Amino acid sequence: MAKASGSSTKLSKKAYDSKVSRVRQDLINLQIDLQESRTKIVLILAGVEGAGRGAALNTLMGWLDPRNVETIAVDEPSNEESERPFMWRYWRSLPSSGRIGIFVDSWYTQTLREETDSRKELNKLDDELHRIRHFERLLADSDTLVIKLWFHLSKDDQGQRLEQLRGDRSTAWRVTDHQVRAHKAYQRLSRTAEHILAETDRPGARWDTIESLEPKLRNLAFAQTLLRRFRAHHRRISKRNQSGPVKPSRIVALRPDGRQRLLELPLDHTLTSRAYENKREKWLGRLNRAIRQAHEAKRTVVFVFEGQDAAGKGGAIRRLTSAVDARNYRIIPVAKPTDEEKKHHYLWRFWRQLPRDGRVVIFDRSWYGRVLVERIEGFCYPHEWRRSFAEINDFEEQLHDHGSIVIKYWLQISKDVQLERFRSRETTPYKQHKINDEDWRNRKQWSAYETAVGDMLALTDTAHAPWSLIPANNKRYARLEVLRHAAKRISAALQE
Amino acid sequence: MAKASGSSTKLSKKAYDSKVSRVRQDLINLQIDLQESRTKIVLILAGVEGAGRGAALNTLMGWLDPRNVETIAVDEPSNEESERPFMWRYWRSLPSSGRIGIFVDSWYTQTLREETDSRKELNKLDDELHRIRHFERLLADSDTLVIKLWFHLSKDDQGQRLEQLRGDRSTAWRVTDHQVRAHKAYQRLSRTAEHILAETDRPGARWDTIESLEPKLRNLAFAQTLLRRFRAHHRRISKRNQSGPVKPSRIVALRPDGRQRLLELPLDHTLTSRAYENKREKWLGRLNRAIRQAHEAKRTVVFVFEGQDAAGKGGAIRRLTSAVDARNYRIIPVAKPTDEEKKHHYLWRFWRQLPRDGRVVIFDRSWYGRVLVERIEGFCYPHEWRRSFAEINDFEEQLHDHGSIVIKYWLQISKDVQLERFRSRETTPYKQHKINDEDWRNRKQWSAYETAVGDMLALTDTAHAPWSLIPANNKRYARLEVLRHAAKRISAALQE
Repeated sequence: MAKASGSSTKLSKKAYDSKVSRVRQDLINLQIDLQESRTKIVLILAGVEGAGRGAALNTLMGWLDPRNVETIAVDEPSNEESERPFMWRYWRSLPSSGRIGIFVDSWYTQTLREETDSRKELNKLDDELHRIRHFERLLADSDTLVIKLWFHLSKDDQGQRLEQLRGDRSTAWRVTDHQVRAHKAYQRLSRTAEHILAETDRPGARWDTIESLEPKLRNLAFAQTLLRRFRAHHRRISKRNQSGPVKPSRIVALRPDGRQRLLELPLDHTLTSRAYENKREKWLGRLNRAIRQAHEAKRTVVFVFEGQDAAGKGGAIRRLTSAVDARNYRIIPVAKPTDEEKKHHYLWRFWRQLPRDGRVVIFDRSWYGRVLVERIEGFCYPHEWRRSFAEINDFEEQLHDHGSIVIKYWLQISKDVQLERFRSRETTPYKQHKINDEDWRNRKQWSAYETAVGDMLALTDTAHAPWSLIPANNKRYARLEVLRHAAKRISAALQE
Repeated sequence: MAKASGSSTKLSKKAYDSKVSRVRQDLINLQIDLQESRTKIVLILAGVEGAGRGAALNTLMGWLDPRNVETIAVDEPSNEESERPFMWRYWRSLPSSGRIGIFVDSWYTQTLREETDSRKELNKLDDELHRIRHFERLLADSDTLVIKLWFHLSKDDQGQRLEQLRGDRSTAWRVTDHQVRAHKAYQRLSRTAEHILAETDRPGARWDTIESLEPKLRNLAFAQTLLRRFRAHHRRISKRNQSGPVKPSRIVALRPDGRQRLLELPLDHTLTSRAYENKREKWLGRLNRAIRQAHEAKRTVVFVFEGQDAAGKGGAIRRLTSAVDARNYRIIPVAKPTDEEKKHHYLWRFWRQLPRDGRVVIFDRSWYGRVLVERIEGFCYPHEWRRSFAEINDFEEQLHDHGSIVIKYWLQISKDVQLERFRSRETTPYKQHKINDEDWRNRKQWSAYETAVGDMLALTDTAHAPWSLIPANNKRYARLEVLRHAAKRISAALQE
């Protein structure tokens, strides 16, 4: 796995300067190349205490162009962080296209730091490592260059180094209590670190070791390792860029049973206006109670509304929110991503919108756009949307594991009813903004959508985040179904 | 001040529907117009309990195009919020160009809510109102349409309304304890509210009152008030857009004494390499101690580095950070704003970067770009950069009032030294990325910059955030000056 760079021999100032001058030049050039190819770079600095990560980083910052680099240090989670799934704090810190994010602390820090003082249960550690592997895989899959460096010192060298610093009045302040404790526990920490490194050394997220005894050699090894990784990545993407843009392809079902489930749904229902109003008040009341209980229990409710154009998502959402204190919910209408969002993984914009514990968030369209419009219109490569079923399931599982209640609705109407509603939108002045050419274009793809929706239903209908199909030809019926179902789902989840 | 809209008479369903249909159409059209003219709209919903703000908002959301609207509800501050200046939480929620931010809770909420249970000291209230006025002024000045609505009910009507809701089993859940308490304290709250409304009813941030007895009339009044304000704003900006783009104008000093101070600074100093190294370690140690003390005292240190191109900001910053734990500082290199940042007030991107309590943040260039490059290159209107001196002073005062230590450096070099460094950058391969045509263009404006810097020094050299001028012809001398000054400033601030 980890290759050792650098060695323990001394280097003359002259030899160092000459090497540095070359390495700086190559680093800068490659940094600019990677920036122009819009690469995201995640650089993780980990290692034993006293190895001089901070000093090495400081030197590196003088060698890189700092304008597109940011240093991310993560310490004790704030309540905004601890009231969201564990990985939220790292998602929010990821670098965007063309930028380098240097994690002085990372998703490894807590794991390693806790080990300094007490031994973690093996189960918990393995869960964390599983999560880390998944996250790094997701980054690597989405063309993030993940560089993980382990700054290494032997126990003796660590001891000597701390002594040396402590011995000089002008540097004694550099030695912290944490470092002293870490030195005492060197053997144990070292075994844990080896385990962690072995378990997270995976394609696309390899560890490199930096020998850190001699500062000059350490800095050089650091820069040379970066250089090697930059260069390899640049070669890889230069090749791939020749493969050309995405072409929309024919939509073939991965899971015909999903489409079948959709087609078998009876869409027409009758409901008198009076029966609707009576039942609505009843279910609004229950829903309000359930949501207040969820709030008190600090459980967040995440609603996802998907459905064809004109299926009535907006109306259903408004009935739903009339049961919720306006201070407690937020609707996220999902349209085109902003420029900042485009420079990130497609899930980033949704992670970004996750509320703190005990809130309600309603996505009016969602991350499922990836396997619907993006698949059908060819906005991403087939291997990208195919991969996203698993990424989405994992995302929702993280929400669920954190205690959030994930409720997903697909509102289904017939093709005739859509036509009727489109026409009514065109002729009702205050509805005209709701209809445009794109809607008519999507309508032509009706059958492709049926296939894509079918696949989505079959592949993302999980125990922790099941889909509910809502027949929506009758608007009142659909709204009531949503209220009733939401009230029941939340109450049930609170009793689990 | 506040104009009353709506009245207490009943309205037939038919008359209501016909009015609604007209008002919806106009609202949508104006919303789209304002969106296209990239207007930012801040809509504040305040008022007495039980007036039905939530229901009115829900109705409105059905009338507007929700894609560019977001609802902002602010409750108890998170620690990320309370560990930053008070207004941070509102800055982070401001809508960007072309969007509407509806504040269900706003900077008025806490003020009003606290009054429900206990009476606030008049001094504290007046401070808050002063801050609010300033903030709304800043918004209005930067072309944000600020609409503030007060939903009004008389005490009797409020009582009746609560009774009515409580009497019906299906709506009883809508009445909260807070509302009951607010009803009891109606008279007192009402007097406070009148005071607050009067004190914050200012040009560009007027209050409108919505009579809220009858829901249909209330909703109509709400929509009509919006319509009126949208229309007036649209008319105003349509006129102004004809006034054309900004033209760069001749740079005339506002405060020649500032430029004089700059010119009188002796720039050349000698310092042997050995003397430098000795002193550096000493001051790094002191700085480290001071920063650790600040960290423990939960005081944030905000560094601002400004200076001519090639004045040595980057090098000085790296020496400084070598005294700080890498987990504890963040460098913000300020270059062009991102697209999201461009859609906000020019200070938004800096508010966004403020760290939590006890951290160090270093701005490599800063908000002073507004009165330097933006002034000189004509990137904004003269009335805009002129206004920003006061806005910046206020911003820094908010940092200071929150407990942050604001340290600002201007690194000054002579024109000859700049030329020397430019040439060295051009001929040293790994420095070539540091020099481009823009640097040469800026150099031609040397004297204009002297004037602008002089004005900046004179107009933003405040007691809470003074400027320090650093002679920087000798790099070592400049770096040492920064270390020494920073250590002293922080220690002194901690003892205050």
